[in-house]
Order: sequence, then C-alpha cells, then structure tokens
Amino acid sequence: MSRVLLATRNAKKLGELRRILAAEGIGGLEVVGLSDVPEFPEAPETGATFEENALAKARDAVAATSLPAVADDSGLTVDALNGMPGVLSARWSGRHGDDQANLDLVLAQLTDTPDERRGAAFVCAAALVLPDGTETVVRGEWRGALLREARGSNGFGYDPIFRPEGENRTSAEMAPAEKDAASHRGRALRALLPALRELAGH
Amino acid sequence: MSRVLLATRNAKKLGELRRILAAEGIGGLEVVGLSDVPEFPEAPETGATFEENALAKARDAVAATSLPAVADDSGLTVDALNGMPGVLSARWSGRHGDDQANLDLVLAQLTDTPDERRGAAFVCAAALVLPDGTETVVRGEWRGALLREARGSNGFGYDPIFRPEGENRTSAEMAPAEKDAASHRGRALRALLPALRELAGH
Repeated sequence: MSRVLLATRNAKKLGELRRILAAEGIGGLEVVGLSDVPEFPEAPETGATFEENALAKARDAVAATSLPAVADDSGLTVDALNGMPGVLSARWSGRHGDDQANLDLVLAQLTDTPDERRGAAFVCAAALVLPDGTETVVRGEWRGALLREARGSNGFGYDPIFRPEGENRTSAEMAPAEKDAASHRGRALRALLPALRELAGH
Repeated sequence: MSRVLLATRNAKKLGELRRILAAEGIGGLEVVGLSDVPEFPEAPETGATFEENALAKARDAVAATSLPAVADDSGLTVDALNGMPGVLSARWSGRHGDDQANLDLVLAQLTDTPDERRGAAFVCAAALVLPDGTETVVRGEWRGALLREARGSNGFGYDPIFRPEGENRTSAEMAPAEKDAASHRGRALRALLPALRELAGH
C-alpha cells in the first residue's frame, strides 16, 4: 500500500481526507500526518496566494520525508475587501490565530457595507507534490455572504459570520459532516482525487 | 467672478486648491468651502471606489448649494492587501479617524511581507460636478513602498510609513509644499484644471 503524507498536525483534517478517499473507493493509500514526522520544519506562510502556500508546504513535506505529500491553505476572501483577508486570514488583526479578533475586525471594516455588497467566499488550495517533482494544485471555493454578527459555535475562524449560498444558517451552525460535504476544503480535496487515484495505482 | 465650492471643512485643502489655481493663472474662480454652507448634510462614504465617493460628495454639495462643486476622496492602496485599505483607509482598524490604529494594523498585517512585495500607492479621486449635471472625475496616484516602522511627523494618516518612489524620506518627512507638488491630491487637482479653466471662462 502506498503512503501519502498530509502536511498537518490536525487530526480532524486527517480524518476528513481518509473519509473522502474511502467514500471514493480509493483503498490503496495510507494517509499519515505530520505528528508521525519528528522535527518537521514549519516554515512561515509568506506566499501571495493560497496556491503558493499550499505548494510550498507540500514541497517542504516531500523534502523532509520523501513521501508524496498533500498540503492545503485556506482563507476567507471578502468581495468588499478586494479578496482580503485571503492569505492573511489567520492573522488579519495582526494577532496570529486570534479568531475572535480577526472576525471582529472584518465586521468592523464592513460596518458601512450594505447587504448587497457583503459577498464572500471561503477558498482552499490543495496541492499534491510527488517525490519525482510532479505537482498538482487545485482550488475549492464556497460562496456566501457575511452577516453583521456571529452565530453558531461549530467550526472556527470566520465560520460564525459566513452564511453559505442557499443556506439560512452560518457555517458555524452546520454539522461537521454537512460542512465537509459543501465546504471549500472538501471541494479542493475532491478535486485532487484524480491525482490521488493515480498515485494509489487505480 | 464664478464661484466653485470645495466640499471640505479643511482650510488646508482650500488653500491648496487656491494655490494651484493661482499657479496656473486661473484667476476667474473664487473657491469657497463648506464652512460657508450652514447645515450641509454630511453623508457617510459608502462607495466601493474613490471615484464613487468623490462624485457622491460633489453631487450632494451641488444639491445643497447650487454651486459648481469639487470633492475628493483619498486613501492608501497596498499591493499585498489587493489594493486595500482603499476606500476604508480612514477606518481600517474599525475606529474611524484613528490614524495610529490604522497605521499599526497595516504594519502588523504586513509583518511577513518581504520588501519586494511592499509596494503601495496613495490614490485620490477628484470630482467636479456642475449645476447643469456635467460631471468630471479624475484620479491621481503616488506610488511608493511601505516601511516597517513610522518615520516623520508631517502629514497624517499613513504618511509616516509611505516612502514615495525616488525618495529616501517618508511623505511625513517631506515639507508640505514638496508634498503638494508630488502627491496624489496635487496630481488629481491638477488633472481637474482643464475643466476648472473652462468653468472660469478661460
């Protein structure tokens, strides 16, 4: 059985990729995570695009392990902010990983933005890099609109203010499995399936 | 002599336009400011572009006074922020008019942005609207790069972190007259001169 590294320490992300592969009948791939890789060098994400960051992370993982590696980079793109926070989503307020501060800042910046201009999308770029240098990078998008206050406690990041198209709930009010099925991350990972299927030898 | 309203209460902006007109030999126009217009309705700036905001302000001024009116809207566009703060420059931190908080936030957001991607421009849209409905809107840009810390005490807003192209100083270290000659506002107002000259009957 081939192994593929998912460049994350997040057990939920590992589970998500394993579920997607199983659902597609791709049985020939064992997914391992970064917790199995001692002393992986965590480089800062300084790319100008989600794709650059996902590719850089996957390349670093291949260099460190010689395994085929999948990596992703995700964020919120807000129409009225010309697509920002984008690659700065996790540090929009200047404090890296402070979800509440980041979300509060986006709401404050959009105070005077009318409903018809509050469109946004969650975006995920996912990259697969093979030890032979073959690179595949794909993008998943999840369109919606930004509310004026937070609702719901599932999810993380900007989920509590993001209402997907065709939904009355925010993505923080959706069950994790529902979100997997619709989300930018799920879409990006499914877009990688043809390349993963080839890797698995199907 | 014709009169033209400059839609501002800022005496420095009035002086700047008067100086530019005098320097161009346009003597047939008396420039008046909003402090001469009691109870002018100040509308919030909710446009998606500098041009929309400048035009809206000039139209409001014409409606209130029946005078030809000039208005401008300015801001900082940062390449690594996809052109934002843009029209949100004065309220980027969520606190309207808090120059220090706005500047600090931009610096924090660009912490990991390397020097070669720190390009930015000050942009000014200036609009002239006549009582007969004729509208002219122009744009002035001032390219430069953003430093990593503030320098200088002239100017306001983002001046202390903006180093214009061809300069070693920030725009907050330049003398006001030098800044007038080079700045986005000066360029935009000079681009309005043909329309103002026509208005003055030259």
